[in-house]
Amino acid sequence: MRIGFVGLGSMGAGMARNLVKGGHALTVWNRTRSRAAELESLGAKVAATPGEAATGADVVITMLADDRALEDVSFGAGKILESLPAGGVHVSASTISVALSRRLGTAHREKHQHYVSAPVFGRPEAAAAAKLFIVAAGPAAQIERCQPAFEAMGQKTFIAGEDASAANLIKVIGNFLITTVIEGLSESFALVKKAGVDPHLLLEILTGSVFPAPIYKNYGGIIAGEKFEPAGFKLPLGLKDNRLLLAAAEENSVPMPMASLLRDRFLAALAQGWSESDWSAIARISAKEAGV
Amino acid sequence: MRIGFVGLGSMGAGMARNLVKGGHALTVWNRTRSRAAELESLGAKVAATPGEAATGADVVITMLADDRALEDVSFGAGKILESLPAGGVHVSASTISVALSRRLGTAHREKHQHYVSAPVFGRPEAAAAAKLFIVAAGPAAQIERCQPAFEAMGQKTFIAGEDASAANLIKVIGNFLITTVIEGLSESFALVKKAGVDPHLLLEILTGSVFPAPIYKNYGGIIAGEKFEPAGFKLPLGLKDNRLLLAAAEENSVPMPMASLLRDRFLAALAQGWSESDWSAIARISAKEAGV
Amino acid sequence: MRIGFVGLGSMGAGMARNLVKGGHALTVWNRTRSRAAELESLGAKVAATPGEAATGADVVITMLADDRALEDVSFGAGKILESLPAGGVHVSASTISVALSRRLGTAHREKHQHYVSAPVFGRPEAAAAAKLFIVAAGPAAQIERCQPAFEAMGQKTFIAGEDASAANLIKVIGNFLITTVIEGLSESFALVKKAGVDPHLLLEILTGSVFPAPIYKNYGGIIAGEKFEPAGFKLPLGLKDNRLLLAAAEENSVPMPMASLLRDRFLAALAQGWSESDWSAIARISAKEAGV
Amino acid sequence: MRIGFVGLGSMGAGMARNLVKGGHALTVWNRTRSRAAELESLGAKVAATPGEAATGADVVITMLADDRALEDVSFGAGKILESLPAGGVHVSASTISVALSRRLGTAHREKHQHYVSAPVFGRPEAAAAAKLFIVAAGPAAQIERCQPAFEAMGQKTFIAGEDASAANLIKVIGNFLITTVIEGLSESFALVKKAGVDPHLLLEILTGSVFPAPIYKNYGGIIAGEKFEPAGFKLPLGLKDNRLLLAAAEENSVPMPMASLLRDRFLAALAQGWSESDWSAIARISAKEAGV
Repeated sequence: MRIGFVGLGSMGAGMARNLVKGGHALTVWNRTRSRAAELESLGAKVAATPGEAATGADVVITMLADDRALEDVSFGAGKILESLPAGGVHVSASTISVALSRRLGTAHREKHQHYVSAPVFGRPEAAAAAKLFIVAAGPAAQIERCQPAFEAMGQKTFIAGEDASAANLIKVIGNFLITTVIEGLSESFALVKKAGVDPHLLLEILTGSVFPAPIYKNYGGIIAGEKFEPAGFKLPLGLKDNRLLLAAAEENSVPMPMASLLRDRFLAALAQGWSESDWSAIARISAKEAGV
Repeated sequence: MRIGFVGLGSMGAGMARNLVKGGHALTVWNRTRSRAAELESLGAKVAATPGEAATGADVVITMLADDRALEDVSFGAGKILESLPAGGVHVSASTISVALSRRLGTAHREKHQHYVSAPVFGRPEAAAAAKLFIVAAGPAAQIERCQPAFEAMGQKTFIAGEDASAANLIKVIGNFLITTVIEGLSESFALVKKAGVDPHLLLEILTGSVFPAPIYKNYGGIIAGEKFEPAGFKLPLGLKDNRLLLAAAEENSVPMPMASLLRDRFLAALAQGWSESDWSAIARISAKEAGV
Repeated sequence: MRIGFVGLGSMGAGMARNLVKGGHALTVWNRTRSRAAELESLGAKVAATPGEAATGADVVITMLADDRALEDVSFGAGKILESLPAGGVHVSASTISVALSRRLGTAHREKHQHYVSAPVFGRPEAAAAAKLFIVAAGPAAQIERCQPAFEAMGQKTFIAGEDASAANLIKVIGNFLITTVIEGLSESFALVKKAGVDPHLLLEILTGSVFPAPIYKNYGGIIAGEKFEPAGFKLPLGLKDNRLLLAAAEENSVPMPMASLLRDRFLAALAQGWSESDWSAIARISAKEAGV
Repeated sequence: MRIGFVGLGSMGAGMARNLVKGGHALTVWNRTRSRAAELESLGAKVAATPGEAATGADVVITMLADDRALEDVSFGAGKILESLPAGGVHVSASTISVALSRRLGTAHREKHQHYVSAPVFGRPEAAAAAKLFIVAAGPAAQIERCQPAFEAMGQKTFIAGEDASAANLIKVIGNFLITTVIEGLSESFALVKKAGVDPHLLLEILTGSVFPAPIYKNYGGIIAGEKFEPAGFKLPLGLKDNRLLLAAAEENSVPMPMASLLRDRFLAALAQGWSESDWSAIARISAKEAGV
């Protein structure tokens, strides 16, 4: 497949590399061009604009930090909507708002292009190892068509229906549930520490019994060991995803008290100056409040 | 081993049965004697008082609903403390307060008896199938001595140190984390339902990717299917365990906002009259508030 | 003074009437023109566009529902910024975001016009009776110049400094504190009701002792009497102001857990279909959760 | 009237002094006898035991720190229940649990004595100045009989019905509402500070408009000025009253999310070591979390 790939951050770089390795003809674009050098050395073409990456492509995949970044590469002169051929597919892998996902769906339909939301679960290591979980939603035929690309990037693809924005909703819910794990462990570790029990012992028992999932092991290890730097996923991104969830909740008039609580944790953590730390650094707020 | 077993509720009955099957000489006691009939038919003796179950025992295991029930069988004339031989071990498998655990430890030491806390993770099916996870804390030699009993009842025993009450703390924290899973899923399901996405689809994606743990599958299935009756673990017991956690948190001056939030969920659920439902029925509060 | 007045809703109509009564030459504009008839009969001119109301005015006062409504009358052809004479003042009395307030300040400065934020405390009855409390912020000389208008509309004007957006921040904080009163009373009434104590008795004792403020008497009476309709201030407006507060809090990285809690109350109340009720109808959520 | 007075802490000392000044024959008891010296110099007799203070009294008034302290002077040999004459009244002015209030009512009835709950609102200065608000509940005739004593101690007495425990419930609700004021102001001050607005200006505007109540002025002044020491009402007492409220709420299955939030604030404040500070020092948690 001829694939355009826009956004070579810590996630996108690994994804693009796996597409090249999978034999796809890649044209990449990144705001900071130097990050494209490695891909170029692997055989990818480097585009001068996002539009150029989309020109002539079967599929253009975007992997960007937030709504604004995706809008910047999608709308306007020399951008994706203008350049993608009719019949081409825009696969948005970024974690973006349900609202922007809907807006992109409409805009692409008007241009006789297709739009598929395909946000991913997994940290940069998973992206590099082609171990992402992909949640795809949009026209079934287009998802089918993109499967070779998905298979090159991920370990499993879930189909979440024809409404593209459903995938975005599911993605922000997934991240919400991860933060509930982080916060739950944080409060628990603060308690056992103060009570004189080793957090590592608690973690070993929890993950050896009722919570054998990697998510508990990984974040439990980070929090018990207080290894919040370097960040796998930075705090401000955690707040951003929480904001996307709360926006979807507000749009649907759904109160989500745990999500509200987490919002305040993220804000408190930012106010302490921890914007370069992993999002699991909200654990330090529980520790501070408990005086440990 | 000569084992006394006190408390043949939905958990205790299965545990006692597995001890008999494991070849141990069991003397059982239950407040409602009729529940002892099955054990008797399997070869257990039936005691007339809790003290009689402890008389001559190497180990007396208690599995009761709450602090008060355990106090009732432990303290006073014809009760465990009076009857257990010097050198005997009281293994408390109930989910009780850290405070009572400490008090029992002291009381048994004064009688030259031993006290081991060994609360368990697992629902009645797991108790019946000898698949419990056991968290044991207390004098190392006594835990070692009880291992044959633990092996007959559970799939794995964790040692949580010499301080018996640490096991009780870990147990209530484990239950707290389970309720965070329940509440997190409840809020998420309310949102997707209102947004027109099938909760079962969400659950399938979550448990197929980031949350492959049985706890997510089981409770997710119960909540998505709204199968809160019959209860595996009744709401008032969930509130009780939350109360034990908050008491431990207060004793240590540790704020636990998620636990506070869950307390209010349990109270709201009780106020709706759902005391016979599974504790995961707090999901209905999220659904009601969202108007779904 | 020649005053343009834009926005004749339940608040604006009373304010405009008091300006006419105060002897000011008023030109009014309202989206629904029929609402201007009463003012016309009192001697006000009726403008065809917001810009016409601002043309030749010393001061143009805007009193609108939200950010969008204020943007609609301010920016673009035939709107306020284009029409207000150089040296004229735009007094924004609406409860709007800190961000829009800043943007308007900048935009007016570029046009050599002045911008004063002057949000008000008080319900429609207070607006009608010229009993509003006005919080004015902006250039001191301009606030001074507007005093005759403020005096015609309110009982007291507070000066909140040169930074216009400070007044908007103070206004949303004031509304936040009112909602904490509403929620506090709501939870309290739910408890006493269930305990068999008359909420009116509680209210009488509270307002006769520690809480003698009108805000407790008024909202306490509404909630104890369950008189949420007709609305003095509708629920969706309460949610809007909560959103403005949370936006300001997020911009400053300040966690406000009570505000988060109130957000969820508003969402739950909207989900029940109470968008036409007074914002104090969030009390019904406490009542429902308590089963009373 | 012959009055026994038990408990000469910062509140009780002022109350007792006003009773003596009011011409009542007082016999006082305090655990630390030296605190009785001033009363003795004013003409009060000093009892050797709580029971002695109740012996021969028409009314014995207790003003103690908590449930345990009141139990200690009430039950057992040489204590109030044993010594108060038949027909005598025990007036409990302490802030105690609804449960203990009920228990005392029953115990006194069995002894053919009377029990009236009469908790008070007001800080030590108000107690000294006979400006307390008294909330009395119990048998109407007995409240009537105690009016001279109430008039000597307070500025106003409210009658809360025949069920003595209703007064205790109302008292803890009153304190709850005071803490919502404290927390609301705390979050607000954290926000304005960070936004560059003077908290004193905010306070002046709030109390000059919508919140003219002393409670806002007093606590607002303490918080804006960060004058948490010396304490008017210590943090651990605030936590105690919050605990009494939550216990009453739990007994009635009433979720009170604001009270839960405040509990966590108190615990966090205690964990920072502020047990000697005023309960309004929970404001520092909001400030810390906001990084101001």
